Amino acid sequence: MPERYQDSRLFRIRHSTAHIMAQALLEYLPEAKIAIGPPIEDGFYYDFDLPRALNADDLKQIETRMKQIMREDHAFNVREVSADEARAFFKDQPYKIELIDDLVNGRVDDNGNKIAEPASSLTLWTQDSFTDLCRGPHVENTNTINPDAFSISFKMPAGAYWRGDEKRQQLTRIYGTAWETKEELDEYLHILEEAKRRDHRVIGEKLGLFTIVPMVGKGLPLWKPNGAIMRDTLERWLRQVQIDNGYQPVVTPHIGNIELYKTSGHYPYYKDSQFAPIQSDDEEFLLKPMNCPHHIMIYKSEMRSYRDLPVRYAEFGTVYRYEQSGELNGLTRVRGFTVDDAHLFVTPEQLVEEFVNVVKLIQYVFATLGLDDFSARVGIRDPKSDKYTGDDALWEQATAAIIQACQQLGLPHTVEEGEAAFYGPKLDFIFRDVLKRRWQLGTVQVDYNLPQRFDLEYVAADGTRQRPVMIHRAPFGSLERFTGILIEHFGGAFPAWLSPVQALLVPITDKHVEYAQSVAATLRAAGLRVEIDSSRERMQKKIAAARERLIPWLLVMGDRDREANAVSVRLRTDEDLGQMPLSQFVEMASSIVGEKRMELK
Amino acid sequence: MPERYQDSRLFRIRHSTAHIMAQALLEYLPEAKIAIGPPIEDGFYYDFDLPRALNADDLKQIETRMKQIMREDHAFNVREVSADEARAFFKDQPYKIELIDDLVNGRVDDNGNKIAEPASSLTLWTQDSFTDLCRGPHVENTNTINPDAFSISFKMPAGAYWRGDEKRQQLTRIYGTAWETKEELDEYLHILEEAKRRDHRVIGEKLGLFTIVPMVGKGLPLWKPNGAIMRDTLERWLRQVQIDNGYQPVVTPHIGNIELYKTSGHYPYYKDSQFAPIQSDDEEFLLKPMNCPHHIMIYKSEMRSYRDLPVRYAEFGTVYRYEQSGELNGLTRVRGFTVDDAHLFVTPEQLVEEFVNVVKLIQYVFATLGLDDFSARVGIRDPKSDKYTGDDALWEQATAAIIQACQQLGLPHTVEEGEAAFYGPKLDFIFRDVLKRRWQLGTVQVDYNLPQRFDLEYVAADGTRQRPVMIHRAPFGSLERFTGILIEHFGGAFPAWLSPVQALLVPITDKHVEYAQSVAATLRAAGLRVEIDSSRERMQKKIAAARERLIPWLLVMGDRDREANAVSVRLRTDEDLGQMPLSQFVEMASSIVGEKRMELK
Repeated sequence: MPERYQDSRLFRIRHSTAHIMAQALLEYLPEAKIAIGPPIEDGFYYDFDLPRALNADDLKQIETRMKQIMREDHAFNVREVSADEARAFFKDQPYKIELIDDLVNGRVDDNGNKIAEPASSLTLWTQDSFTDLCRGPHVENTNTINPDAFSISFKMPAGAYWRGDEKRQQLTRIYGTAWETKEELDEYLHILEEAKRRDHRVIGEKLGLFTIVPMVGKGLPLWKPNGAIMRDTLERWLRQVQIDNGYQPVVTPHIGNIELYKTSGHYPYYKDSQFAPIQSDDEEFLLKPMNCPHHIMIYKSEMRSYRDLPVRYAEFGTVYRYEQSGELNGLTRVRGFTVDDAHLFVTPEQLVEEFVNVVKLIQYVFATLGLDDFSARVGIRDPKSDKYTGDDALWEQATAAIIQACQQLGLPHTVEEGEAAFYGPKLDFIFRDVLKRRWQLGTVQVDYNLPQRFDLEYVAADGTRQRPVMIHRAPFGSLERFTGILIEHFGGAFPAWLSPVQALLVPITDKHVEYAQSVAATLRAAGLRVEIDSSRERMQKKIAAARERLIPWLLVMGDRDREANAVSVRLRTDEDLGQMPLSQFVEMASSIVGEKRMELK
Repeated sequence: MPERYQDSRLFRIRHSTAHIMAQALLEYLPEAKIAIGPPIEDGFYYDFDLPRALNADDLKQIETRMKQIMREDHAFNVREVSADEARAFFKDQPYKIELIDDLVNGRVDDNGNKIAEPASSLTLWTQDSFTDLCRGPHVENTNTINPDAFSISFKMPAGAYWRGDEKRQQLTRIYGTAWETKEELDEYLHILEEAKRRDHRVIGEKLGLFTIVPMVGKGLPLWKPNGAIMRDTLERWLRQVQIDNGYQPVVTPHIGNIELYKTSGHYPYYKDSQFAPIQSDDEEFLLKPMNCPHHIMIYKSEMRSYRDLPVRYAEFGTVYRYEQSGELNGLTRVRGFTVDDAHLFVTPEQLVEEFVNVVKLIQYVFATLGLDDFSARVGIRDPKSDKYTGDDALWEQATAAIIQACQQLGLPHTVEEGEAAFYGPKLDFIFRDVLKRRWQLGTVQVDYNLPQRFDLEYVAADGTRQRPVMIHRAPFGSLERFTGILIEHFGGAFPAWLSPVQALLVPITDKHVEYAQSVAATLRAAGLRVEIDSSRERMQKKIAAARERLIPWLLVMGDRDREANAVSVRLRTDEDLGQMPLSQFVEMASSIVGEKRMELK
């Protein structure tokens, strides 16, 4: 088992650094009132009620003082006190007084329900001149914290309400980060910078991939031509891979009668994350939150024999879910998304083999895209929760099948409670991108429940009616989210086969436009996506613009190229491959695109 | 101007035949009460209140008596009568009495509103022993009607409520058809029979193309694998044709904020044929009834220059409309359908040329599919209606552009008032299928209004802001409807390139299955869609089953074929092409599919 964050030294360093920041700030602005200052993922914050707004220079001075405290020798000491002692100590700190009252009485929520037990004692932690109401833990001494491995200047102060309640006082929150070594801090700041540079919303705008406009709706992306081409390229590729593996395409509508979802259990299960039902004269419809019930109805539209199984229906099916608007984010968190969905209807005997093949297909998909840093997680029921449907025996069967398939594949995996779908356990693939950020991608689920709810059948070899098992699976998960992740992972410099424009043709002067057009025709006939830049800009500007657009190949052509029926090739990495016969470029580019290779030469 | 149906001799023949049928029926069942008997498209009916149910034998006897009346010499005579005279004449016919009262008083609807002026006089038409309350006109004499050119037996009697009101008496409706010659009748009956045989709902079921199930919803087809492949084949082909013609793909969500449709005018214009809005916390959404507003928002997301125009956005965009459930029919009338949509944003100077190119693309699409019997209709405003939006001057400009384009193309066309879209005039293509039935397919619309409503702009060469013109166009119109029409037009025997399964491989015995698998691999590598029938059925049964499925090529393979690396080829027309080297079949089939040829050899 890996160490839990809250047990780690980093956690204590960040917690202690928050206290040191509060000390430095109180010395700097003695009238300030202090609220709370916890460690958080990758850092910490502290909320203050300040007599005036802070600027970058203030933060700099506070940071300098913090470094000084860290260079000095101040132990972190703890002592137990009574509530009255604590109140006396914090008599000038009203937020602490409120916290003490809550701790002593036990917290209650807005409805008067108790949410924490009364504290039997309070603890105060002190370093140097600063004392805070705090449970700890902390480092031993301020001088054990590396003064070169923290930063509070990377994010300007932000607003925050006392207790997150917008009716209470607005406070100033100062964020910070802290690490054990300067190298770790630099790496972290670099990743932050990179993540900002790779933000898929920024690159999406720059490369003309997508846009989101309020008049269409929040979380409802419009795919612009370059994005639509990229999306289509992913879709067509996966579609063909699936057909080659015995899947059959189907197409189903984006709405369905609400009875369908009542039978499946999606309604009311998904009610809170659903768009409201659509009323009509005699029917009520839902925007479909999932494609499975539709595929089930196709399965059910014919009598099936064991000879027909497995039946594997695949659809790039767009579904709609009502995410909270505050949670929406570009392509990675949206209200309408296209699942690269498939549902396999198999006999119980076929289950493990089919599951193994599904995982192999997903592994092949990831490998082709060069996404090699991923791990697998088996999500099972939380035995304490009642949000799951179906018999215990079926859940156990399904879970056993997944574990067995993982063993057969030799696939390292963790098992996590509470990560199952409501109808069955699943296997998720967690991908770490080039910045080491984790993203949940593909999923495979085993389902004995929906076949039961929909009374699905097939005629077995002995003539009896049997129930098939379903596998739900989606390698990308959501085309929108997957594209967003690819944009950030590749920083917009996609493998050539996925690039919306693969080659930009730049005639040196007007005289060479005609030659560029004939080159374009040759490349298009070879299935390549090309553009001609025949604008009147200077050559250097054209080259810079092409690099901005991250187009894999830049083909410059002048007299010398035209005469030799050649092109002068530059890569987006700025590498100059020099002049090359056109036929040689066609062959090189076609094979790189055709084989989905990552390199550009 | 072609003759109006109600002025034609056929109309009179059918009206008179209805009277003759009533005479024959009253002679056969004197207690019968007669209601009304009008001519309708392709025939006529008469509604009766009968003392007993009719069977096929009754109809036969009535038909025989009708023929006899037609062979006799009975003039159709008319006389004017007062209301009292009419009431006295029809004293035993209560439905006629009610009609007389209505005619004399002027009809009122359920709310008491007058819907017809009181008649100043009534007319009675008589032939032989039968007299009806009727305005005519009729033929001169029963002997001018061809006794071999009518039929009442082709449809069994149907139920009908008096005055179409389900609270009134249920009547028996007998349908008939009548023509001038026996050849016309036979042709008509043949077409009816053919239409039934070609019913896309029946073929769609038989070929596994689609299904519609109540639990998903009326008018919401589920595309099964074979249909999904056919649909995808159409879509991918048109998509590529469009890209080759400078269109750019986009992808947009299936819902949008209602403000978008208020701005476009689709809401409340389309309100009655719309699914109800979807409410959420702070926004209201509509299932999109049209794709144009979404494409407009993509256009508007960037500043455009005259150098960027024309911008041509294409999307196979699924839209939803709430058709009345009684009007739904298989794929041809649905509640959710995919438009092969595109919107072109052009400068006013580019309008005619772009329009001409759009029409050429549509003509190319129809020609490729072998749909050569079509006509064009220019739909303009109904000057008396107020359902249109925008300035008169813009409407005139748009209409003039369409007419000019038609002239440039030499495209014969009719001009029809009231057939415009609400935002602009349009050019529709009306296709006549193999049974001579007319279907409206592709449409092209010129629109100055939406660019104004959305304040669209581009920067002109002189630096001023100018407004683009939009062209809306869809060659298929709706993929669902178009597929339905193709199914009926081809009777399910699609051109090979559209066939879901192009070749069925039939090994003669188990020994030949392995060879069939290697042939299948070869054909699949050549891009052909094939299946192997390795069931244990007898060869003749397998061949019959393949013919039922209308698979273009049936490849039988036994010892002789395996030894020669050959296949024995039969067409779905039952033509036997004999043995052929496998390589020759691959070449033949690939070129027929690749070139989208209609023939199979």
